Amino acid sequence: MAGSKYTYVRNFELPDPLLPGTFMVFRLDGHSFHRFSDEHGFTKPNDIRALELMDHAAKDVMEQYSDIVLAFGESDEFSFLLRKSATLYNRRQSKIVSTLTSLFTSSYVFRWATYFPDCPLKYPPSFDGRIILYPSAREIRDYFSWRQTDTHINNLYNTTFWALVQQGGESTTQAHATLKGTVSKEKHEILFSRFQVNYNALDARVRKGSTLVREEIPEQSIPNDNGETPTRPDEPLESVAPSSIRMRKRTKPRTKVVVLHCDIIKDDFWDSRLEILSD
Amino acid sequence: MAGSKYTYVRNFELPDPLLPGTFMVFRLDGHSFHRFSDEHGFTKPNDIRALELMDHAAKDVMEQYSDIVLAFGESDEFSFLLRKSATLYNRRQSKIVSTLTSLFTSSYVFRWATYFPDCPLKYPPSFDGRIILYPSAREIRDYFSWRQTDTHINNLYNTTFWALVQQGGESTTQAHATLKGTVSKEKHEILFSRFQVNYNALDARVRKGSTLVREEIPEQSIPNDNGETPTRPDEPLESVAPSSIRMRKRTKPRTKVVVLHCDIIKDDFWDSRLEILSD
Amino acid sequence: MAGSKYTYVRNFELPDPLLPGTFMVFRLDGHSFHRFSDEHGFTKPNDIRALELMDHAAKDVMEQYSDIVLAFGESDEFSFLLRKSATLYNRRQSKIVSTLTSLFTSSYVFRWATYFPDCPLKYPPSFDGRIILYPSAREIRDYFSWRQTDTHINNLYNTTFWALVQQGGESTTQAHATLKGTVSKEKHEILFSRFQVNYNALDARVRKGSTLVREEIPEQSIPNDNGETPTRPDEPLESVAPSSIRMRKRTKPRTKVVVLHCDIIKDDFWDSRLEILSD
Amino acid sequence: MAGSKYTYVRNFELPDPLLPGTFMVFRLDGHSFHRFSDEHGFTKPNDIRALELMDHAAKDVMEQYSDIVLAFGESDEFSFLLRKSATLYNRRQSKIVSTLTSLFTSSYVFRWATYFPDCPLKYPPSFDGRIILYPSAREIRDYFSWRQTDTHINNLYNTTFWALVQQGGESTTQAHATLKGTVSKEKHEILFSRFQVNYNALDARVRKGSTLVREEIPEQSIPNDNGETPTRPDEPLESVAPSSIRMRKRTKPRTKVVVLHCDIIKDDFWDSRLEILSD
Repeated sequence: MAGSKYTYVRNFELPDPLLPGTFMVFRLDGHSFHRFSDEHGFTKPNDIRALELMDHAAKDVMEQYSDIVLAFGESDEFSFLLRKSATLYNRRQSKIVSTLTSLFTSSYVFRWATYFPDCPLKYPPSFDGRIILYPSAREIRDYFSWRQTDTHINNLYNTTFWALVQQGGESTTQAHATLKGTVSKEKHEILFSRFQVNYNALDARVRKGSTLVREEIPEQSIPNDNGETPTRPDEPLESVAPSSIRMRKRTKPRTKVVVLHCDIIKDDFWDSRLEILSD
Repeated sequence: MAGSKYTYVRNFELPDPLLPGTFMVFRLDGHSFHRFSDEHGFTKPNDIRALELMDHAAKDVMEQYSDIVLAFGESDEFSFLLRKSATLYNRRQSKIVSTLTSLFTSSYVFRWATYFPDCPLKYPPSFDGRIILYPSAREIRDYFSWRQTDTHINNLYNTTFWALVQQGGESTTQAHATLKGTVSKEKHEILFSRFQVNYNALDARVRKGSTLVREEIPEQSIPNDNGETPTRPDEPLESVAPSSIRMRKRTKPRTKVVVLHCDIIKDDFWDSRLEILSD
Repeated sequence: MAGSKYTYVRNFELPDPLLPGTFMVFRLDGHSFHRFSDEHGFTKPNDIRALELMDHAAKDVMEQYSDIVLAFGESDEFSFLLRKSATLYNRRQSKIVSTLTSLFTSSYVFRWATYFPDCPLKYPPSFDGRIILYPSAREIRDYFSWRQTDTHINNLYNTTFWALVQQGGESTTQAHATLKGTVSKEKHEILFSRFQVNYNALDARVRKGSTLVREEIPEQSIPNDNGETPTRPDEPLESVAPSSIRMRKRTKPRTKVVVLHCDIIKDDFWDSRLEILSD
Repeated sequence: MAGSKYTYVRNFELPDPLLPGTFMVFRLDGHSFHRFSDEHGFTKPNDIRALELMDHAAKDVMEQYSDIVLAFGESDEFSFLLRKSATLYNRRQSKIVSTLTSLFTSSYVFRWATYFPDCPLKYPPSFDGRIILYPSAREIRDYFSWRQTDTHINNLYNTTFWALVQQGGESTTQAHATLKGTVSKEKHEILFSRFQVNYNALDARVRKGSTLVREEIPEQSIPNDNGETPTRPDEPLESVAPSSIRMRKRTKPRTKVVVLHCDIIKDDFWDSRLEILSD
């Protein structure tokens, strides 16, 4: 073949398999999203449209990759759990990291106009991704507890901060100074006494983040009625899946991805979904 | 801190630095683009709109990452060369692979409507990426020769194949059979004798692929006049870059990324652009 | 400092940490031991001196590295299990692999004359080592079952083979041909009917390999009476350990490493030594 | 096969190939050699027997592994350069690191009695090893300059330190205090004015370390006359090499490994041995 004298360069492509039998967490984060949210006028402290767009992109990823059994997102980040026995792309690290980051990004841009109909995208946003391996269920529980704890800490801070700025008339510098060194209880107190906000009564979405799981669809149910999590109407990516893929799925109980805003630190969530951590 | 008992999970995030002083090639490929091109009615054997869209996404990536000194694309793949001394993201592999794949994907979807105004995107396309390290300039020359040779081989095959189908009335099965075992010379002959096509007279874009390099902008020139490579008008990503980045760039000669369709196997290309392989 | 302009070369030393919270198995194998055993006149099918020397080297390694909780050896190979929580050398792969291989080799050569008093070492033997990570106890059980099953298969073959050669007068070529395609039962039958050998009555050492575990030393016991495993008198490496190391050990119950030749596939072994797999 | 249900554990053995076309430096260091040298009464600041033993072990390694083109040692460390094109063990990292460390260790213990006939080894010493990849000749030059500069700095310090202690009657604490903050010139001065020692007249071995290279053996020469580097008589490992290996070597010019004590920082050494860095 004409190209053969150059093909030796392929020998520099080294294998990068991830350890088998190990949980993979794939986490992605928005790249320079501070600026991105400013440029696109995200409301503070939380822009529900932006959060729903993140959820939708995550749902697209989860619908396309059946090895993903759980996802959790907050702000501009999302974590996906792949089952221990996943053999996706022969567990090649770069292939998995790049493909999942790419699909999430693609979906985010593709669906932008649905969530921001009056705000055209000014430039293409990007995300970075990584995979972390965890040997046991204990660490997976702790990983998601870590992320949800972080959601709580960040959101309480941001909620109080923007209340001070937007309603309290403080400059951002002043607001930072006001909050410096305060503990959780004091922030609750500021919100309640100064702004009549009961933090615990806020939308669970912003306090708990978004948790995506698969749920079985009862045979008789109407496919697009996903009660628990009313999202905007959308065409799932599967609708364009080639028939061979649709065929294979028929043999398992049909599932759909649902978005929850619930506690995932305590045992309840996990005890009622044992399939997430078992294989 | 409230989250502290869970933060040990961060210890499972392992470092993944790439060897210093080594060229990085970042290559991405379309994921299931055979289907994607069918669903979106790409013309065969080459869809110029699709190729220009790929070029534009690559240009966006190159404009944002100054460590990229060269890019080469064909069909649904693109290769980017990062200089040996690049310290982008401390040379962390997952960070680089995921971020570059993400930005390319994002740009592709973002600019879709510009190139396919009458064909809305049906679903979000994705790409996978990888990084290959090469210790010396010799291997970089051979890497890009390998890709351009591949471009030639694939395009000659596809051009002949689709001529047999579209003009010769063969089925795709027949066309494959007709071409089975033929050498380059015979394909040229089929094209010329049966379809009056002089392969070497075809658009250089499809025969040579797209090569992106940086060129200095003479101080007096009008920024958007990039003569050699007339592309559609566009707003470079830099226009939204924060001022700190714009400031830094002022100190170096201003450059722009241009798209060429030329031979990159012979020495000429490299001899007139010594900065690509030197550091 | 005078050397400073060269010290940048240290930047090429990349980190190689092994995943935390994961069992490590370190396995080493003799390098070209077929030739080595011929040159040093090892008796066939098993040379007890050579096996005892391997055991002793393994014991030296285990006594020096408290993270090793189990070892299993047969022929010219040995596997060591490091606890999940081991932080030895910050879990740096090359450091662990090289140091453990080095100490085993060193001990093997150092103690050679004790086991082969009449056969001086002709040249320095070497071993290669590797580390394999396993996320769970199940895989560790199966790993050691794999090695002991292998011991059984190899030893049954070798015992029958050498009986055919040494007592049956067959050439090695003939013996291979005689055994080709035979199953386990047939080899037992050959041994019993032709050579009056009841395979199951052979020394457990050769049938079961050597398993090294730590056992607590009762306070009153005489240190060098290790009944179960009568080995040659030797000076444990600890006797030359600096006092600081001896001091530290006092605080835990004192243990010694003992060599067993028992079944490690069934549950009994593990059920009575739960500390091996727990952390 | 009986063992088949366990063999899945082999799937956890992951590939670890080193980048092709790249120089490998394999460096090993003595493990706890401060204590080891004390226990075995090494003379201070340099024990020539110990240095010669290190050289001999390095020579054994180099004679057995033809991909090694250069070695440099000082104190209890040795660095080996493997040619860029080396395919030893398919460039598998653990295999190379462990095998080379093992052979060096084995040779060190094996030959101990030759260099320390009156001082039996008290316990088995060990070494740790690592591999560092370098893409170009420039970095290899700088790597060896770094090591030889280090040799100089350490040896000048140690020579002065032990002169203060052994001849000057200072305690080790006093000697450290005396030298604290002194530059090179001042140490030379102390040696010369107080102890009449001209540092530059000391044995090149301790000032320059040991450099091992291959030299062609002229056809007529007497094999064991290696003039330039008079070492103790020894039987090279090759003498026990199987005939197939001896056969293969005949086809290339015969070489021997010689030990030099010369400058390897300046160009002379490299200019007269271009084969070391070329491939």
